[in-house]
Amino acid sequence: MGGSHTMQDLHTTKGGKSVVFRGDGEPRTIQTFLGNLNDFSATQTLEDDNFSIGGLVEQLEQTIARILKKPAAIFMPTGTLANHLAIRKHATPYGRVAVQEQSHLYNDTGDSLARLSGINLVPLGKEKPSFSLEELRKAYETSTTGRVFNPISVVSIETPVRRQHGQTVPWQELQILTEFCREHNLPVHLDGARIFMQAAVEGQTVHQYAQLFDSVYISLYKYFGAPFGGVLAGESSFIDGLYHDRRMFGSGLAHSSMIAALALHGINEFEPTFHAAIEKAHLLFADLNALAHLNVDAFEHGSNIFTLTVSEDLNLEKIAQHLKAIDIFIYPEPGTQIAYLHINSTILRQTNVEITKAFIDAIELSFVP
Amino acid sequence: MGGSHTMQDLHTTKGGKSVVFRGDGEPRTIQTFLGNLNDFSATQTLEDDNFSIGGLVEQLEQTIARILKKPAAIFMPTGTLANHLAIRKHATPYGRVAVQEQSHLYNDTGDSLARLSGINLVPLGKEKPSFSLEELRKAYETSTTGRVFNPISVVSIETPVRRQHGQTVPWQELQILTEFCREHNLPVHLDGARIFMQAAVEGQTVHQYAQLFDSVYISLYKYFGAPFGGVLAGESSFIDGLYHDRRMFGSGLAHSSMIAALALHGINEFEPTFHAAIEKAHLLFADLNALAHLNVDAFEHGSNIFTLTVSEDLNLEKIAQHLKAIDIFIYPEPGTQIAYLHINSTILRQTNVEITKAFIDAIELSFVP
Repeated sequence: MGGSHTMQDLHTTKGGKSVVFRGDGEPRTIQTFLGNLNDFSATQTLEDDNFSIGGLVEQLEQTIARILKKPAAIFMPTGTLANHLAIRKHATPYGRVAVQEQSHLYNDTGDSLARLSGINLVPLGKEKPSFSLEELRKAYETSTTGRVFNPISVVSIETPVRRQHGQTVPWQELQILTEFCREHNLPVHLDGARIFMQAAVEGQTVHQYAQLFDSVYISLYKYFGAPFGGVLAGESSFIDGLYHDRRMFGSGLAHSSMIAALALHGINEFEPTFHAAIEKAHLLFADLNALAHLNVDAFEHGSNIFTLTVSEDLNLEKIAQHLKAIDIFIYPEPGTQIAYLHINSTILRQTNVEITKAFIDAIELSFVP
Repeated sequence: MGGSHTMQDLHTTKGGKSVVFRGDGEPRTIQTFLGNLNDFSATQTLEDDNFSIGGLVEQLEQTIARILKKPAAIFMPTGTLANHLAIRKHATPYGRVAVQEQSHLYNDTGDSLARLSGINLVPLGKEKPSFSLEELRKAYETSTTGRVFNPISVVSIETPVRRQHGQTVPWQELQILTEFCREHNLPVHLDGARIFMQAAVEGQTVHQYAQLFDSVYISLYKYFGAPFGGVLAGESSFIDGLYHDRRMFGSGLAHSSMIAALALHGINEFEPTFHAAIEKAHLLFADLNALAHLNVDAFEHGSNIFTLTVSEDLNLEKIAQHLKAIDIFIYPEPGTQIAYLHINSTILRQTNVEITKAFIDAIELSFVP
C-alpha cells in the first residue's frame, strides 16, 4: 500500500476515523479550533496584535512572506478582500482587469471590483479553467484602442480553479501568460487560495509560482486550519500602507492574533500531510479501479478532486449510505451516477485496505433491484 | 465606600490587581480570549456557523436583536463596515449622509462612504460632540435645493462620541433630532458602539435609544470581550440580504462562531459590572477631590471618561510611575498636568481605600523640587 504507512498510522486516530471526501483540509469546527489553540498556547508565546498589526499576525505575515520568497505580506480576513485590494492597487490609475470567466473573482464577489472600485472585469476563457495567450493578447490589444483610454492594466490568474473542479493552470501555461504580462508591463496577480495543493501535485515549491507574479494571495483556512483569512504578499512598496485600505473596507479587525495562531499551528503540518494524502489516494484509486462497476478518474491538470462514476446497475445514494455507516463520506451529485472525491488529510485516517473493503461491501448491497 | 462591596470583592482577584484607567472594558489579550473560550465551552454547546451564517453567530444576532428590541440583526466584523453598509442601504438611491464632524465615520474611515459607495458625508457640529436641530434643518433644506437633486437622505448619530472624550448626545437631544428625521422621512442610523455605557450612565435601557433609530450598530469588543466585531440591528426587510453586501466588501468570514462565543460569554456580565464600576468611580473621585493638589472633573454629558488635573507643583509623570508600581495605571497627556481617567471594570480590582492611599503616597513623592 505504498510508502506512507507511518504517516497513515500517525493520522488514523486524530479527529476520529472519519474519511471525508470533501474539502481541502480537516473539517473546520469551533471545537477543533479551540483544541488547536490550546495546543498552540502550550508551547508558543501568545503575542497580541493591535488592529491586526504586530504580534502573532506579523509573525504569520513574515512566515508566509518567507515561504513565498516575497519581501512583504499582510493579513486579510478574506480572499475576496485580498484579491480586491491587490487588483485595486495594481490597476491605478486605469481600470480594467483581465480575469478567468470561471474565476471566483468573476462569479463570487458581487462584481465588487466594478461596484466599489470602478474597475471593469474582463472575462476570458469562457467555461474553461483558463485562457490562452492568444485570448489575453487579443483582449489586451482591443482594450488599448478605446476612444476613452482605459486599457487592461492588470491581469489576475486563479489556480487551481475551484469552479472547474480544482483544475489548475499548469506551470508551463503560467510561465507563458506571466511572461506576456511582464513584456507589456502589466502587473499580474495570483489568486493562489489553493496554490500549496498545486505545488504538491506538480512537484514544485510554492515560491516558484510566486516568483512569476507581482502579488500573491494564499488562503489560511482551506487547509491550514484557521477559521478564516488569507495573506497577500508582494513587494514592500506594494504592501506598505495597505492596512489603511483594509480598514477603509471595514476589515481592520481589532484583534486577529487568535486567527494567526491557528494558521501558524497548521501551516507546517500541511505539506507532508497533503503529500501523504495524495500519494495514498493514487494507490487507493488504483485499487478501486481494479473493481468492477466503478471508475475513479482524474481531471486533466487536476489537483485534489477526482470523479467517481458507478455503473447504471448501482444506486450511488445507497453506496454513500453504506459507506457513511463506517465513517466514509462521499457526496453524490443528485440525479447522477457521479460523486466528486476531494482528497484531503482525512484519507489518512483509515487504511486503503479498510477503505477498499468498505467500497466492496457497499457495492454488493447497492445493486438496483 | 458605597453599596458595591460584593461586586468589588468578586472582581478583586480576576485578572490580577491591575486597575487600568484606559479603555471601556477589561484589557483584551489572546490569553484572556482563550481562557474565556474554554470557560464558555465548558457549559455551552459550540454550534458552528457557515460563512458567518447560523450557529452561535445567529444566536448572538438574536440575542442583540432581543436586547435592542429590533426584529433582526446581522454580525459584522467591524463597526466601520456596520455603519457603512447601514448608511449605504438607507441612502439608496440618493447620496448624502449628515454626520457629526467629530464622528468616527467622518474621521476614521478614510471617507469610505464617499470613495466606495458614492455617498457624500456632510459634517455638522464642528468641534462639538453633536449638532443642533437648527444645523440639521438648515443643512437638509440647503441640500434639497441643488441644481442636481441629491439631498441628504440619511442621518447618522454617534453617541457617546469617542473623539469628544466619550461625551454623549443626551437622551433629550436624541429625541429632538430623530423626530425631525421621522417628520422628513429621513432614515436615521445610530452608531452606538458604546451605547450600553450611555444607557448605564443615563439610567435608561438600550432599547429606549434603539427605538428612536431605524438601524443601530453596537460593538462586541469594546466591553463585551470579543476580539473584534459588532452587530447591526434593524427591521427584517432592512437586514435581509445584507450578508451579500458583507461578502462583497470582503467580510464574509468563513467561520465566526469563536467570536460569537466570546461576545455571548461577556454580554450578560457587562451591565451589572459597569454599573458597579461607575458607582465606585463616583465615590472614589469624591474621595480624591477631598485631597489637596488634584481635581477629578466630569465632562458635560460625559459617559465613562473623567479629567484628572494636578497642580503645577506636582510632576504628573512621576505620579503615574509611583501608581504603576502598585498596579494602578494612568496615562498623562504629554506636556500637561492632565490625565484622562477611563472607567471600566478594572476599577473593581482594588478597594477605594487602596486606590486613594496609592494616590496620597504618589503625590507625596512627586512634588517638583
